Amino acid sequence: MSLLDGLLGDSDLARIMGDAAQIAAMLRVEAALARVEGRLGIIPPEAAKAIAGVAADLHPDAAALEPGTARAGIPAQALVTALRSACGPHADWVHFGATSQDIQDSALVLQLRTALEVMAERLGALDAMLAEKSAAFADQPIPARTRFQIAAPTTLGAKIAVWRAPLGRHLQRLDELRPRLFNVSFHGAAGTGAALSPSTDEVRRALADALGLSAPEIPWHATRDAIAELGGWLALVTGSLGKIGIDLILLGQSEIAEVAAGTGGGSSTMPQKSNPVAAEALVTLARLNAGDTGTLHQAMIHAQERDGAALGLEWAVLPQMVVRTGAALRIGLDLATTLVPRPERIAATFAADRGAMMAEAATFALSRQMPRAEAQRLVAEALRAVAETPDRTLAQALDALAPGGDWTERLRPARQTGEAARQADAGKPSREDKT
Amino acid sequence: MSLLDGLLGDSDLARIMGDAAQIAAMLRVEAALARVEGRLGIIPPEAAKAIAGVAADLHPDAAALEPGTARAGIPAQALVTALRSACGPHADWVHFGATSQDIQDSALVLQLRTALEVMAERLGALDAMLAEKSAAFADQPIPARTRFQIAAPTTLGAKIAVWRAPLGRHLQRLDELRPRLFNVSFHGAAGTGAALSPSTDEVRRALADALGLSAPEIPWHATRDAIAELGGWLALVTGSLGKIGIDLILLGQSEIAEVAAGTGGGSSTMPQKSNPVAAEALVTLARLNAGDTGTLHQAMIHAQERDGAALGLEWAVLPQMVVRTGAALRIGLDLATTLVPRPERIAATFAADRGAMMAEAATFALSRQMPRAEAQRLVAEALRAVAETPDRTLAQALDALAPGGDWTERLRPARQTGEAARQADAGKPSREDKT
Amino acid sequence: MSLLDGLLGDSDLARIMGDAAQIAAMLRVEAALARVEGRLGIIPPEAAKAIAGVAADLHPDAAALEPGTARAGIPAQALVTALRSACGPHADWVHFGATSQDIQDSALVLQLRTALEVMAERLGALDAMLAEKSAAFADQPIPARTRFQIAAPTTLGAKIAVWRAPLGRHLQRLDELRPRLFNVSFHGAAGTGAALSPSTDEVRRALADALGLSAPEIPWHATRDAIAELGGWLALVTGSLGKIGIDLILLGQSEIAEVAAGTGGGSSTMPQKSNPVAAEALVTLARLNAGDTGTLHQAMIHAQERDGAALGLEWAVLPQMVVRTGAALRIGLDLATTLVPRPERIAATFAADRGAMMAEAATFALSRQMPRAEAQRLVAEALRAVAETPDRTLAQALDALAPGGDWTERLRPARQTGEAARQADAGKPSREDKT
Amino acid sequence: MSLLDGLLGDSDLARIMGDAAQIAAMLRVEAALARVEGRLGIIPPEAAKAIAGVAADLHPDAAALEPGTARAGIPAQALVTALRSACGPHADWVHFGATSQDIQDSALVLQLRTALEVMAERLGALDAMLAEKSAAFADQPIPARTRFQIAAPTTLGAKIAVWRAPLGRHLQRLDELRPRLFNVSFHGAAGTGAALSPSTDEVRRALADALGLSAPEIPWHATRDAIAELGGWLALVTGSLGKIGIDLILLGQSEIAEVAAGTGGGSSTMPQKSNPVAAEALVTLARLNAGDTGTLHQAMIHAQERDGAALGLEWAVLPQMVVRTGAALRIGLDLATTLVPRPERIAATFAADRGAMMAEAATFALSRQMPRAEAQRLVAEALRAVAETPDRTLAQALDALAPGGDWTERLRPARQTGEAARQADAGKPSREDKT
Repeated sequence: MSLLDGLLGDSDLARIMGDAAQIAAMLRVEAALARVEGRLGIIPPEAAKAIAGVAADLHPDAAALEPGTARAGIPAQALVTALRSACGPHADWVHFGATSQDIQDSALVLQLRTALEVMAERLGALDAMLAEKSAAFADQPIPARTRFQIAAPTTLGAKIAVWRAPLGRHLQRLDELRPRLFNVSFHGAAGTGAALSPSTDEVRRALADALGLSAPEIPWHATRDAIAELGGWLALVTGSLGKIGIDLILLGQSEIAEVAAGTGGGSSTMPQKSNPVAAEALVTLARLNAGDTGTLHQAMIHAQERDGAALGLEWAVLPQMVVRTGAALRIGLDLATTLVPRPERIAATFAADRGAMMAEAATFALSRQMPRAEAQRLVAEALRAVAETPDRTLAQALDALAPGGDWTERLRPARQTGEAARQADAGKPSREDKT
Repeated sequence: MSLLDGLLGDSDLARIMGDAAQIAAMLRVEAALARVEGRLGIIPPEAAKAIAGVAADLHPDAAALEPGTARAGIPAQALVTALRSACGPHADWVHFGATSQDIQDSALVLQLRTALEVMAERLGALDAMLAEKSAAFADQPIPARTRFQIAAPTTLGAKIAVWRAPLGRHLQRLDELRPRLFNVSFHGAAGTGAALSPSTDEVRRALADALGLSAPEIPWHATRDAIAELGGWLALVTGSLGKIGIDLILLGQSEIAEVAAGTGGGSSTMPQKSNPVAAEALVTLARLNAGDTGTLHQAMIHAQERDGAALGLEWAVLPQMVVRTGAALRIGLDLATTLVPRPERIAATFAADRGAMMAEAATFALSRQMPRAEAQRLVAEALRAVAETPDRTLAQALDALAPGGDWTERLRPARQTGEAARQADAGKPSREDKT
Repeated sequence: MSLLDGLLGDSDLARIMGDAAQIAAMLRVEAALARVEGRLGIIPPEAAKAIAGVAADLHPDAAALEPGTARAGIPAQALVTALRSACGPHADWVHFGATSQDIQDSALVLQLRTALEVMAERLGALDAMLAEKSAAFADQPIPARTRFQIAAPTTLGAKIAVWRAPLGRHLQRLDELRPRLFNVSFHGAAGTGAALSPSTDEVRRALADALGLSAPEIPWHATRDAIAELGGWLALVTGSLGKIGIDLILLGQSEIAEVAAGTGGGSSTMPQKSNPVAAEALVTLARLNAGDTGTLHQAMIHAQERDGAALGLEWAVLPQMVVRTGAALRIGLDLATTLVPRPERIAATFAADRGAMMAEAATFALSRQMPRAEAQRLVAEALRAVAETPDRTLAQALDALAPGGDWTERLRPARQTGEAARQADAGKPSREDKT
Repeated sequence: MSLLDGLLGDSDLARIMGDAAQIAAMLRVEAALARVEGRLGIIPPEAAKAIAGVAADLHPDAAALEPGTARAGIPAQALVTALRSACGPHADWVHFGATSQDIQDSALVLQLRTALEVMAERLGALDAMLAEKSAAFADQPIPARTRFQIAAPTTLGAKIAVWRAPLGRHLQRLDELRPRLFNVSFHGAAGTGAALSPSTDEVRRALADALGLSAPEIPWHATRDAIAELGGWLALVTGSLGKIGIDLILLGQSEIAEVAAGTGGGSSTMPQKSNPVAAEALVTLARLNAGDTGTLHQAMIHAQERDGAALGLEWAVLPQMVVRTGAALRIGLDLATTLVPRPERIAATFAADRGAMMAEAATFALSRQMPRAEAQRLVAEALRAVAETPDRTLAQALDALAPGGDWTERLRPARQTGEAARQADAGKPSREDKT
């Protein structure tokens, strides 16, 4: 559709959240409603059958419903008009006892259910791939960098374990929010279900059953916490992927290049470049969803029994957040799959650092044999020697200042990665049973 | 403190999230760490005892730590300096094996735990009060308004039940997010716990036990999903209260005034006015938190093993979100407690409407004896008569067009509120056992 | 395209900011560059001619460029590839000395120039229409409402003058920002124009001339203040229209209905309703742009000489902000054009108020003959009488308490609208000469 | 005040925007109003004199006004109460004909005028310092980096010129927005100035003169474009500084360290580190203001003649945006002042790159003697040789592939910086006359 779809979009999620799918979902809800009402004797059985049949065959395109949507301020109403006119003598029984928002919201939930299945699957696949990579590189030393400075050694596996850790939590959050989200809406014009009273509740439960949803007693026309919560979840997912993105960008800088992932984007004029296009996209998608989750929370301030101004915010923002999340997961999986360390570049970083990043380790080692303040003074002096003498390493400087310590061996990075390997080896798919 | 604190702030939460509490929490973490390390033989027992004692008595004020914070870029580091200098000969064993972020984050979690207790209590109290009010006004008819137009009758109890519905879900969400949030941080400079390896995990678990927190294996220095999730939760809570606020504003307009709550703010020049100051504050607080939750999600894009630019976002945004949420809950409870309907104003609204809001009900009633399209035509004609004839009601118009229907009785609002009373009566405290 | 385009979109602006227009604008820039470089002897004249000719005839569709865009991380690069391959033997001279971002940004500016022309025209038309309406209803009394309470009388013309006031400022802001925005980009890979040095500046100026733009000496690849400023302007425009929207929503409530504008949206089930669909859309569009302007300002934190993650934010956000602004202006003009007061409803409001809104006026009147505190006391007593006695007006109450004042005449709303009529009559098109 | 004030705050701006200053500014407005009204014969001259005298001596503290503010929903009203009670017999003439919002907004403008003076001065100083640095390092080669990859050479002076370019535009924008912002508010309860009609306009103009402000005919109680525009300006300023911040962070990474600025923050445990605390703060402040500018634009959707929910957004957000902008400018100036290149590290980068960043330059050079496609093929082959042969430079590789080119000299970075030095030398204070 759009120039940027391959970069920042996702065709699967765009289809699931798109107009055609929305129209189909609304028709599915209307059909289910007719069938349920027919079965319960609320509308004539032949009307029910006819409506359900017409709804199954109807494929109005978005363009045809657009003017009616603009007039009514809600797509469902334009669709109901189209459905009625296609149902001929049974038109009276279409949408019986429902309000437009009931159909709109129930259809939205059906779309979201499908979208969340796809996202959960991608999240699971990404989790598994990162687990694999984390385990594979559990022992590959690499510098940890805090506040954009080399800090101390860790391993690539531990870095990946950190990326992976929130994914399991996201799946857990998804399990928790699903029951709050997967609700049918069938409460009628004023939220009281008055039109079909006292059968409303029975219809609602039957409709919910037919669609595989729950049937809340209290209407959610105007309390949109489940939608805002979902927006937050989407932003959490893209936020975690944005963290992977910024890390890959920084690890892939020309001067560092310790990890490669994906195929770099070429420059139109600089052949030597390998731009981190996919990793940048992860950051972009995360920032876009972060901004939009704020807007979606604005939509919770929803006036009275229905507020078109607030609903419009959801309609504009939620689908693009879903698509972006799908895009980020697809891109993230591609990057995770192709991720490889470049050991020679990592080795070069360690060499250039000349052991400065082992300063904390040296201090702790020395502290075992002298007061800590003295150890710190010694290490500081050694660091000065490293800074001032071109090829001097911290180990060599310490050999001179605190002889007999076999500093080269004691300060070998691989010896000083603490729990990194264990963190990395925790790398087995956390929810293999579920995804 | 500030002119606006009474309007948009909350003194309890401001204290819990304030500088003094943060300093105290950080000292508590350092003291617990020293005790744990003393017990495990990692630092000398007498040092442990001394440090814990000093930490208990130390009360550096924020001003004293401000310059060090500005230099180091993190409050915890300025505090560690102060603590060390107060510990004299034991200074070496202060903060042993920790990194500043470990202390900062563990202390934050302790503050948040207290803050969430207060908020949960207020949420529970608000839930209970709304339950009471919902039950009390379960049968009080009042118009539902959709898209800023009178729609059809509901009851005030049902309206309140709608306000209340998300509160129980917020308590449930809180239960779910607590275990993801209540984690100690003790992973050291590079996240590997190298300094105390192989005892790090043991120290971490003991420290977590001492503080009543969990001890995650993977560091969360740089994966901030629990913080962003909390921000989302805060915005969900204020969003739900903002919905109550906008409803009370609209119900309290001079021309409507069907519900009163709180004590209206006076005007400096217009004595007749009763401004909905508290309800407006709920809307303001909701919009502020909605905006800030977006910013907090930006902070998830956290570079490498620690990113000062991202942490600064959290430090600036999270405390004010907590305070606002506390303020909204306090204000909300006050409004809920004082909420009363004004039946004479509600009656006046029904009288002025002359039954137009019963149009849907009339259509459904007529549809039982004639085709729906004909019923709709009749009702439209009756509505025209109502619009054109000053004192004509819909019932009277229908009496003329469809005689013999006893329309006045059939269109009595209280007969047409469907499930409203039942929704309202669901009004018993949903989590009385838990809060 | 989309179900919601008629409600929240704008087909003109969508076309101007769309893929096809972007591709055409980029080809226009490439063609102009080739011609300029041919004329200056930088590339062979026959190559220049050929490239310009091919570019004029080339219409690659977005789908064809999408994969290349995803690979390169920038649409311009995919287009350059397509253009080169269409130029056969002259391919070498395509895009000569430029970097993708030069083309992308120059084309963006061309698109924005057209979009801003359309928006300025609509803004001018809206300004003129509001001036007309403001003058027409300069003397129509209507209550002012502050903090959702009836305050004191104003006139409808004055209300409209308030809506209109910012529009002239927006046109002025647009005049001011144009020169900061309408810049060509031609600075090459590193921003130094090295490839064509020392001719770069000459080419840049000639290219700017050819496109009707300015030629800044300093590259703007990475300093995006003009883009963020534009985003702010768009949000200012929609914000001002959102204010009109919320006012029309509130003035159009069933219980008030003092002003009508547009054609109300019908309900799917409640025939009596006239939903303020268009006014709600103004509020929605304002909130969406407010949120997105925040995201666009995030894009100013643009790393080094080019930052794909920051550029992606602009690409995703700016076009939709432009389309929304165009939509809001179109909707606003429609509402302004059809706006009419309903004098009988306004009269009913005044009648129902029974003069309470004249309390300030009464106080000032009484203060001329007694101490203000006593006047306030008297008015308060009169207000109590109004509140307690069903048909009593403030004038009647004051006649009893402060006889001989001809209170009915003195408190006639039309006498107490101060400068309202003059404010309203300022209603002549403020920039008739310019738009 | 707060632990973080030194890091993310600014004491000067905090004072200017603080409670005490707000109270003083409101009292200044009330005093000026009394004097003006006394002079014009609207209130008794002795009352005017007394009120002005009392206002000058009154210093109520914020805590005393807080409860009244919470009740009234606006600080000005609490202050008016305090002022009246201090004026004894003249109380009646205090605040005569004004509404609280008039005082609140006029005082805000006075505070902002001072704040903008301070900010303009800092902006001018930063501009001048960057001009100096830009000129000083006009010829210092340094790699340009696009999309996080080394691209081609530029000079440090050109980099700084890019940072500086938007600052002059910000000063220009400030000049443009001042007249839209520096307006008195004096329009009374309904915006019509009815209380003092027909003298309102005369009083307004005299009050504006007394305060050095303009006197707009149309009230701005409810049209807040000037406030939102100011918020946008603040976010533009911090955005430009955030770009400097991210660049300094990236240039200061351990592996690059080509530029140093400020004094690095130490680590609590890693003595070798020099954290870019100040540069990180610039990024944090930029992201915070970006988020808040969105919220401030939400406040433009301001209902009717006064909307407390919208005003609350401004009150909460605008002062902190001002303080942050002041902080960013202070930090930015400190970083600019101390900025120095580290030529040996830059030289090391060039050495490690081995000429790969000259690939575009080589292609253009070769294109003069062969078809471009062939040149590209040759350069690609040379790049492969560079990649595969440890110490081979691009120049050496080209010497082998295209002998006789004196490639070492031709590809000397300093020869290939195009217009960089000229861009840098444009570095003279752009507005020395104005700031």
